[in-house]
Amino acid sequence: MIPRIPHTTHPIITLTTDFGIGDGYVAAMKGIILGINPDATIVDISHSIEPQNIQQGAFVLSTVHPYFPLDTIHVAIVDPGVGGPRRAIILETDNAIFLAPDNGILSYVAQASTKKRLPKTTNFRLPPELQAFEINNPQYWHHPVSQTFHGRDIFAPVAAHISLGVPLSALGQPITTINTFPISRPRPSRGGNVLVGHILHIDRFGNLVTDITSRDLFPGEFHIEISGHKITALSQSYEQSQGLLAIIGSSGRLEIAVRCGNAAELLSAKTGDELLLVRQPSRDSKKNSRRHR
Amino acid sequence: MIPRIPHTTHPIITLTTDFGIGDGYVAAMKGIILGINPDATIVDISHSIEPQNIQQGAFVLSTVHPYFPLDTIHVAIVDPGVGGPRRAIILETDNAIFLAPDNGILSYVAQASTKKRLPKTTNFRLPPELQAFEINNPQYWHHPVSQTFHGRDIFAPVAAHISLGVPLSALGQPITTINTFPISRPRPSRGGNVLVGHILHIDRFGNLVTDITSRDLFPGEFHIEISGHKITALSQSYEQSQGLLAIIGSSGRLEIAVRCGNAAELLSAKTGDELLLVRQPSRDSKKNSRRHR
Amino acid sequence: MIPRIPHTTHPIITLTTDFGIGDGYVAAMKGIILGINPDATIVDISHSIEPQNIQQGAFVLSTVHPYFPLDTIHVAIVDPGVGGPRRAIILETDNAIFLAPDNGILSYVAQASTKKRLPKTTNFRLPPELQAFEINNPQYWHHPVSQTFHGRDIFAPVAAHISLGVPLSALGQPITTINTFPISRPRPSRGGNVLVGHILHIDRFGNLVTDITSRDLFPGEFHIEISGHKITALSQSYEQSQGLLAIIGSSGRLEIAVRCGNAAELLSAKTGDELLLVRQPSRDSKKNSRRHR
Repeated sequence: MIPRIPHTTHPIITLTTDFGIGDGYVAAMKGIILGINPDATIVDISHSIEPQNIQQGAFVLSTVHPYFPLDTIHVAIVDPGVGGPRRAIILETDNAIFLAPDNGILSYVAQASTKKRLPKTTNFRLPPELQAFEINNPQYWHHPVSQTFHGRDIFAPVAAHISLGVPLSALGQPITTINTFPISRPRPSRGGNVLVGHILHIDRFGNLVTDITSRDLFPGEFHIEISGHKITALSQSYEQSQGLLAIIGSSGRLEIAVRCGNAAELLSAKTGDELLLVRQPSRDSKKNSRRHR
Repeated sequence: MIPRIPHTTHPIITLTTDFGIGDGYVAAMKGIILGINPDATIVDISHSIEPQNIQQGAFVLSTVHPYFPLDTIHVAIVDPGVGGPRRAIILETDNAIFLAPDNGILSYVAQASTKKRLPKTTNFRLPPELQAFEINNPQYWHHPVSQTFHGRDIFAPVAAHISLGVPLSALGQPITTINTFPISRPRPSRGGNVLVGHILHIDRFGNLVTDITSRDLFPGEFHIEISGHKITALSQSYEQSQGLLAIIGSSGRLEIAVRCGNAAELLSAKTGDELLLVRQPSRDSKKNSRRHR
Repeated sequence: MIPRIPHTTHPIITLTTDFGIGDGYVAAMKGIILGINPDATIVDISHSIEPQNIQQGAFVLSTVHPYFPLDTIHVAIVDPGVGGPRRAIILETDNAIFLAPDNGILSYVAQASTKKRLPKTTNFRLPPELQAFEINNPQYWHHPVSQTFHGRDIFAPVAAHISLGVPLSALGQPITTINTFPISRPRPSRGGNVLVGHILHIDRFGNLVTDITSRDLFPGEFHIEISGHKITALSQSYEQSQGLLAIIGSSGRLEIAVRCGNAAELLSAKTGDELLLVRQPSRDSKKNSRRHR
């Protein structure tokens, strides 16, 4: 559906940050980019990431970047370590190029682009299908470089130069490891009859996006338990249900929602909270268990 | 003033949604659009429509679309029925093309594009000057189609294909009716000497935008009553008045405002609240009424 | 770093307003601009300026516009006097063109573009290096002109025409003075051993941006006092410190911050609040003072 577009003719640069939209920080980045490449199309992914919430930035980026054309340049900046020893990096995957501080914000991207499971430690050795560089050639930066705003002075100009066709190898040294955080995954429990999932993200509608994907669901019947509520079936649409419902959302994850309401408020839910996917005994086994009583 | 621009050379796609700007939903739509038509210019109208508030989305869209060039493609998505039986539609007017769920969000657009008055029922038979199609040709969609996000998987790719020149008839079947809601209008009272208006929208400044237009005003003198306050004259500018004021706003509607203040807070006003336009007895009739005492 | 780009081939128009992003006001301006110049690149600087807060709009614009290419057209609208006698003006500097109501919102821009100090009065006589015009030729406006929304009906179309190459002199009469407000500056105290600064702006992170610039710092040792807290050294990065810290921020100003926290909340700080930069007695003078006891 999405045709391959060479990035030199129609370069797209996306921005994901915790900068907010009120202070002009994002606009300063755009000014720098357009000064270098006036043909760049800049798309905001989100600037409402909670301040310093690297996990949230990583998650939002991971759900959006797959919908961009090939060779899109994604700049992701949630950067509490700006000005300190943390590296600025470029990660190149089959589909896209990512620029970010090396603090784990590319964890989902790295995980999705490889068969390798992310380690518990933060040091992720890149498989051959992923290339990465430390951004350390100041020739492509905006000077003087502020110690508090590398988004404007390093990431923006480097992204713009990439969009002009500057090879990644000109921008810094190749690296073989990047920092990642362990990605939240549901945990089997009670002999595999329960899956303990977690809320990864709460969206504007109060929908609870979980770490349980459609592939994690039990093949037979199951119900969901969350905050003392029980949901007995998956809905096919919001409209189909009254009250609390469970549905496979737009990123392929199990979501808890309320039709025309706000599940997060109803359940006082917060990121990290658990929910249970509970396998129903099959009818046969129910019959059996009755017989055995 | 605004020259006619054929949509194939400089296509503009606008987006009006209740998605917010934090979760990346809007950006996913933009990624899909730019993957299909890299030359599209995408403009955000609003993503701050209250969740599921179709009326608000309809109103905001109605005040903005007239300022866009001819053949602009407007995508409006406030869509509590996503994934259910509600249709996805295209409405073509003399000026523009609108894509939306068929839930009434195009009510103002339909009303403004025709001489026909919207019916009280929700089934609006389109007059000949309006063409509409149900979007039902999956060839132009992004697959797999999520049951919760047709904005990304149906509306965005269809809008992008229209911007490339795909004829509307290729995207689905013609339809002859669309769903609309009755549009709020002021109601005459007390023998025509009072007009009972309603607050349609409260903007960022706390200005109260009403359903009383400049054409509804009494030709002679009148005053306005709202929440126990009386406003005796229309202002020509915010600066001209102290305290509560009434003015014809930028969409040709009567607005209640406070100079450098917030009328909504001052009056604890909310959408749907009433205000009265009260005709002043003319001086002659005043004299008469005195005489009769 | 930023190459000179003639504004006629890649014109950029930026928007700084207090309109918010929910009501479609900004989008109406964009529709008008794109109807006149479909090739314009429009960049939002901020639409979250507090309603009617001219100082805040002026400050945010001042920190962002230097990062845009030459000949960028900046439209800045915080305009409580819209529809009244205040003028609409164009200010041309060496780098850029600014359109705004003549209410002081260009004070920082004017100050930065000249050696002249802004007067205490509001009437600033322009030095020869700055040109200005009153926008008063209705030929380039969108009609009818609303009395409440000159952003859409005057500033947007005039900016678009400038981006097409219409000379400024065609848009109105040259003027020799503009309105400015006195720009906040730190005040020396206690014989020059203390500098009393002020909080100019609080950003999304709760960082307190002050009117003390890096050039204002005492050459030797000093500490900072704010709201009963003492900060004894400048940090080189947020990460370097625990708790409250002081750092030179991205606009070259002293900022008070909290690592991964919110200084504004911690200190209950607000714009205009004072802070003290206190010169440390040098070691020699300390020794002397001990000797003298």
